[in-house]
Amino acid sequence: MTQRLVVIGGDATGMSAASQARRRRDAGDLEIIAFERGHHTSYSACGIPYWVAGDVDDPNALVARTAEEHRARDIDLRLGTEAVEIDLDGRRVRTRGQDGGAEAWTGFDHLVIATGAVPVRPPIPGIDADGVHGVQTLDDGEALMAGIDRDVVHDAVVVGGGYIGVEMAEAMLRHGLRVTLLERDEQPMATLDPDMGHLVREAMEGMGIRVETGSAVREVLTGGDGRVRAVATDKDEYPAQMVVLGLGVRPETTLAREAGLPLGARGGLLTDLSMRVRGTEGIWAGGDCVEVLNLVSGALQHIALGTHANKHGRIIGTNIGGGYATFPGVVGTAVSKVCDVEIARSGLKESQARAAGLRYVTAVIESTSRAGYFPGAAPMTVKIIAEHSTGRLLGLQIVGREGAAKRVDIGAVALTAGMTVGQMTALDLGYAPPFSPVWDPVLVAASKAAEKVRTTCG
Amino acid sequence: MTQRLVVIGGDATGMSAASQARRRRDAGDLEIIAFERGHHTSYSACGIPYWVAGDVDDPNALVARTAEEHRARDIDLRLGTEAVEIDLDGRRVRTRGQDGGAEAWTGFDHLVIATGAVPVRPPIPGIDADGVHGVQTLDDGEALMAGIDRDVVHDAVVVGGGYIGVEMAEAMLRHGLRVTLLERDEQPMATLDPDMGHLVREAMEGMGIRVETGSAVREVLTGGDGRVRAVATDKDEYPAQMVVLGLGVRPETTLAREAGLPLGARGGLLTDLSMRVRGTEGIWAGGDCVEVLNLVSGALQHIALGTHANKHGRIIGTNIGGGYATFPGVVGTAVSKVCDVEIARSGLKESQARAAGLRYVTAVIESTSRAGYFPGAAPMTVKIIAEHSTGRLLGLQIVGREGAAKRVDIGAVALTAGMTVGQMTALDLGYAPPFSPVWDPVLVAASKAAEKVRTTCG
Repeated sequence: MTQRLVVIGGDATGMSAASQARRRRDAGDLEIIAFERGHHTSYSACGIPYWVAGDVDDPNALVARTAEEHRARDIDLRLGTEAVEIDLDGRRVRTRGQDGGAEAWTGFDHLVIATGAVPVRPPIPGIDADGVHGVQTLDDGEALMAGIDRDVVHDAVVVGGGYIGVEMAEAMLRHGLRVTLLERDEQPMATLDPDMGHLVREAMEGMGIRVETGSAVREVLTGGDGRVRAVATDKDEYPAQMVVLGLGVRPETTLAREAGLPLGARGGLLTDLSMRVRGTEGIWAGGDCVEVLNLVSGALQHIALGTHANKHGRIIGTNIGGGYATFPGVVGTAVSKVCDVEIARSGLKESQARAAGLRYVTAVIESTSRAGYFPGAAPMTVKIIAEHSTGRLLGLQIVGREGAAKRVDIGAVALTAGMTVGQMTALDLGYAPPFSPVWDPVLVAASKAAEKVRTTCG
Repeated sequence: MTQRLVVIGGDATGMSAASQARRRRDAGDLEIIAFERGHHTSYSACGIPYWVAGDVDDPNALVARTAEEHRARDIDLRLGTEAVEIDLDGRRVRTRGQDGGAEAWTGFDHLVIATGAVPVRPPIPGIDADGVHGVQTLDDGEALMAGIDRDVVHDAVVVGGGYIGVEMAEAMLRHGLRVTLLERDEQPMATLDPDMGHLVREAMEGMGIRVETGSAVREVLTGGDGRVRAVATDKDEYPAQMVVLGLGVRPETTLAREAGLPLGARGGLLTDLSMRVRGTEGIWAGGDCVEVLNLVSGALQHIALGTHANKHGRIIGTNIGGGYATFPGVVGTAVSKVCDVEIARSGLKESQARAAGLRYVTAVIESTSRAGYFPGAAPMTVKIIAEHSTGRLLGLQIVGREGAAKRVDIGAVALTAGMTVGQMTALDLGYAPPFSPVWDPVLVAASKAAEKVRTTCG
């Protein structure tokens, strides 16, 4: 008998799940209906800052698979259709067409909740004024691009110095604007330790970006026309004809909460290792609306990142399709860049290690991306955090230029394997003068960390 | 009482050992004498092709630490002094000054044998003719550069298509020469499988390098002036006013053999995990003159590579200095490039896996270095070899352009950790559009390999 899979959310997780399930079960065996309240599907939200910056010309390039392509594979994708209720006992979903469309109930055997995340918008005066933009969706990006074209914009303020914030600061700079980045924490890139974040700050200031930290945004000031004219913090006012919000996101789990599904401390859905919502049968969730296990800290985290969302979708689709796949957790890897400055981290930063009850040593070294004598050798700073006594790698942070960011993958694999920094010093990493000094920067940092473990953890 | 450390060979391993021992024991505790028969010390032999190519202007840039710097740290470095005998019972070394210099015996408490490797020179007619160059030492590089400046050279033949061979083919091309690469095997880069070597061949041919494979060099033909004029294989003749030998190297272990020290099947010294020569006390060896354990195949290998040589030196110096360090082995990582084509491998290729008694599956995929829509996204081909039944990663090979080579480090760490390709599919690798597609190419390959393990190893 034909089963029915209903997917709520037509982006990375939802459509990967649908595609993978379809690969394994044909339409006679599994009917697939996907509801997406927006007008785009399967696009790379991570690519939006690069489209705004001008690296990517056409937003359609960000779409991995169009609605038509999904439909051609017998996936009944319904754009502009919002799920408004999950009835767990009745195993059905209530939907509503946008702009006053009709409501309907759709039954399911399997349900995938892939409702994603919503940007954090602090409840401050003026936050909804004309000229204040988020960058979460393709629609957001279109509105921002139109604003740059249409309005007289000389000054941009980016609120929030995380990944999206620093990427958008670059994008605004490349539109020739005067850019101020406002960050509540001590340094931008608060996913790094402050000493490493400071390097990002210095680099950004060197590019001409004004970086103001340690102050909270209090109000978006508007002119007589209702448009933004400045941003006020508890310290100062910053002129702005455009404001970009990069304050991060929180899980969109309204439907799940109303249905009584289990949520974690960060508001994300809780799943088991197969990405099934805890305590349910046939209800699956993944991507930006779930919490994931950090394998280093042992704690749950909310991490909105396309690569996790795609993995979750494939795992869910495999399991619905009759295969077997699990998601063991993350180690907290993230990479980004501001102009030519590359930023990478994996594992725990110091405050996360402390919060997890861990004691640790740290080592910071400077090296280069290539042999020092090779043209293009770019400096990089590498920080390692290693567990006290055991020497187990706990975290790796890198700030540098060309060739810096993806070196963090060495740490990502070593963290997954539970390696010690002592073991890492023997790693047989790729060496040739155009690609690395004879001691790769990560080896140098591991070596220094191992020495610290020996000398300070007697 | 002051002990004495004698080092034979003043390059990476020898001088790293000396430096590390000196860091830990001062001159009153440990006298250090290093004999080097050449006139240079502590230089990057791996950098020579890039100097010849013109990437590096000044060969002095390849010198990591000068003789004066070593001497300033109380290391008695004697250049132009060749060790000619090791007397194990008497614990002394006989040396001879070059150009008829005097002989002397020097006693030791610790001896480091770091005699390196010598280039393979096939015993064919004409191999010693004017215009035939090796690229093993700085002196070789100087002779080759002088030849390009002095002689009328239009055609260069590079004999041997390994790392040095392909790098030197690029270097000759960049001097504006017509270049032919001769390789005995089926494809250049025989450290890769033939299907991956074929990609290197195609790329080189696209650059205008003539690549002739499957034929053995029979003779170097000379003109009336005694200078090279062509190279003859068993198939054809190739005009050449310059010939570069890139046939690899073999361990230089003449002294060790004569002293009765244990050598392996490849002629390299055999050591224990602390880099002490097997069955001895206080006799240490490392770098290009030893055999190393391949952790994937379980077999001994000879691998001449600066990064291993430096690790060995530091380990030896640490142990002589009263610390503790070991070298667990290698996983066979190597990276290189020809112009903008990056080449990387780690673990075993198919023939090595078979020779080790392993059964395996393979997966080959094509992907890009960045998100497909991001400018500069460069194609790469990734091959994974995974063990039959268990799915354990056995090998990773990558041929691509910018961003390809160092991705092999993911495999190097996973091989060291004994991960399966199934485990690798969950790796939390760095993702952002400028650095990777949402599925890193290595994840795509691991995923395909894991699928093959499941479907073919029932």
